[in-house]
Amino acid sequence: MATVLKAAPISQQIVDDLAKQCSLLKKDGCIPCLKVILIGEHAPSVIYTRNKKKFMESIGAECEIIKLAEDVSEENFLNTLKTQAKDKSVHGLFVQLPLPKHLSHIDVGQLVPPEKDVDGFHAQNLYKLMAGDKGENALLPCTPKGVMTMLKHAGVSLEGKSVAVIGRSLIVGKPLSLLMTNYNATVTMCHSKTSNLKQVTKSSDIIVAAIGRAKFINSEFLRSEGDQILIDVGINHDSDGILCGDIDQNDVENKCALITPVPGGVGKMTIVSLGQNLITAATNQLEK
Amino acid sequence: MATVLKAAPISQQIVDDLAKQCSLLKKDGCIPCLKVILIGEHAPSVIYTRNKKKFMESIGAECEIIKLAEDVSEENFLNTLKTQAKDKSVHGLFVQLPLPKHLSHIDVGQLVPPEKDVDGFHAQNLYKLMAGDKGENALLPCTPKGVMTMLKHAGVSLEGKSVAVIGRSLIVGKPLSLLMTNYNATVTMCHSKTSNLKQVTKSSDIIVAAIGRAKFINSEFLRSEGDQILIDVGINHDSDGILCGDIDQNDVENKCALITPVPGGVGKMTIVSLGQNLITAATNQLEK
Repeated sequence: MATVLKAAPISQQIVDDLAKQCSLLKKDGCIPCLKVILIGEHAPSVIYTRNKKKFMESIGAECEIIKLAEDVSEENFLNTLKTQAKDKSVHGLFVQLPLPKHLSHIDVGQLVPPEKDVDGFHAQNLYKLMAGDKGENALLPCTPKGVMTMLKHAGVSLEGKSVAVIGRSLIVGKPLSLLMTNYNATVTMCHSKTSNLKQVTKSSDIIVAAIGRAKFINSEFLRSEGDQILIDVGINHDSDGILCGDIDQNDVENKCALITPVPGGVGKMTIVSLGQNLITAATNQLEK
Repeated sequence: MATVLKAAPISQQIVDDLAKQCSLLKKDGCIPCLKVILIGEHAPSVIYTRNKKKFMESIGAECEIIKLAEDVSEENFLNTLKTQAKDKSVHGLFVQLPLPKHLSHIDVGQLVPPEKDVDGFHAQNLYKLMAGDKGENALLPCTPKGVMTMLKHAGVSLEGKSVAVIGRSLIVGKPLSLLMTNYNATVTMCHSKTSNLKQVTKSSDIIVAAIGRAKFINSEFLRSEGDQILIDVGINHDSDGILCGDIDQNDVENKCALITPVPGGVGKMTIVSLGQNLITAATNQLEK
């Protein structure tokens, strides 16, 4: 049986650390503050932002959700964003995606100042990642950062490892590939046009599935040694409507060494990474 | 015998195209103009900048080399850069590297406005590459762009191909990996810590060597079918002082399908890419 690497114990330890750091920042007169701009009533977005607010408050930080109407004008939206970007009491800022159609041409990640970019999508933060940063100077995108945190807590070194990252999104696959390369892993960036996917996954020490297809990766993608590490970034629903990942967890559980579950795995770490980025951003801004 | 893919015929065709585009821009009142800031008398830098000037003039563009003393103060250097960055008659701008030690902490690529960044190293241009751009909107780094131009002229499609890119530099390896991924290749980003390099190269349709080690890649890295495409980005000198690439060209010439030579291969394309970027930059700035 594979070791199931759950997020909860890792998360709890980090939450305790973040609460301590937050308390120290407050002693220095800095109350870490996150602002989230939420447009409209898109149900999952409402839940996500509420969870983020709860999490930030649980570590002692402030979090305000700024609600704008679904039909907010581009001008009003951009003005709201600019006001928050300039406000020195705001340390972290992001716009909850997806945007309504009439605003979807805006690349909001680029409008948040890089030092407040707790989502890690500003060009300047991603550039640092390209330039070799492991997160010392850049605010890292939350999901890739969460994956790295889990691997670190599991004692998995990336040095010299081969990794198949499946899914080339700007949110997960591409930044995670760069980050793992910076940690001396040899990464193959796979995607829907990869012609020899099973050959790549079988020859990889670590497989990261971030494609958004329910149970796509099964035991046919694994080698027979049972020594592989599987990271499941997917959050999907199967044909019975049950929450599942990109990996067919039942099928692989006896055929790998370690696996992150869904739910209770990488997904849970994203919000933890956001909290870490907020505390880092507040600390950096205090030091300036 | 492998096909040897030389730069000269490709380059000549592009030079002719660029001269036509340059002439059209002039009719619209725009004289494409490149400014190069050269600090000190570093011999290779003097030669490189002179060659760039010659090339730009050969397509009908202007090129001025702004020479600063080796011991120029940081303030004077930055002021010179700012003046050129603001000057609307300047369409392309870069600082010839390497910088003298007292300025080496400055990331000059970030100080050139992205629209004049003909070197393609500004965070905003690299971000576009991460976001999936193939060069439609971004100014691409010159060497990766040159590799793509050569492959295109040779009729090599990247769709579904497996590629081993060896060398993870910010100048070549990383942007080329992203660019090839955007063209639907499946890229493995290899480097000095890759533990199974021969296994990776043998299973790849295309091998790009960009590591800076004379004749490092030899026939032991190739599969026996003789069907692989080899791109040699290296510019080194062998133990006899003779110019050579990262690939042992004599050793592999009967064991691959296509190879770019050194000299006369990728190295020659870099300056062509720079010319293309200048004309693109001038065209974009005229359209604004």
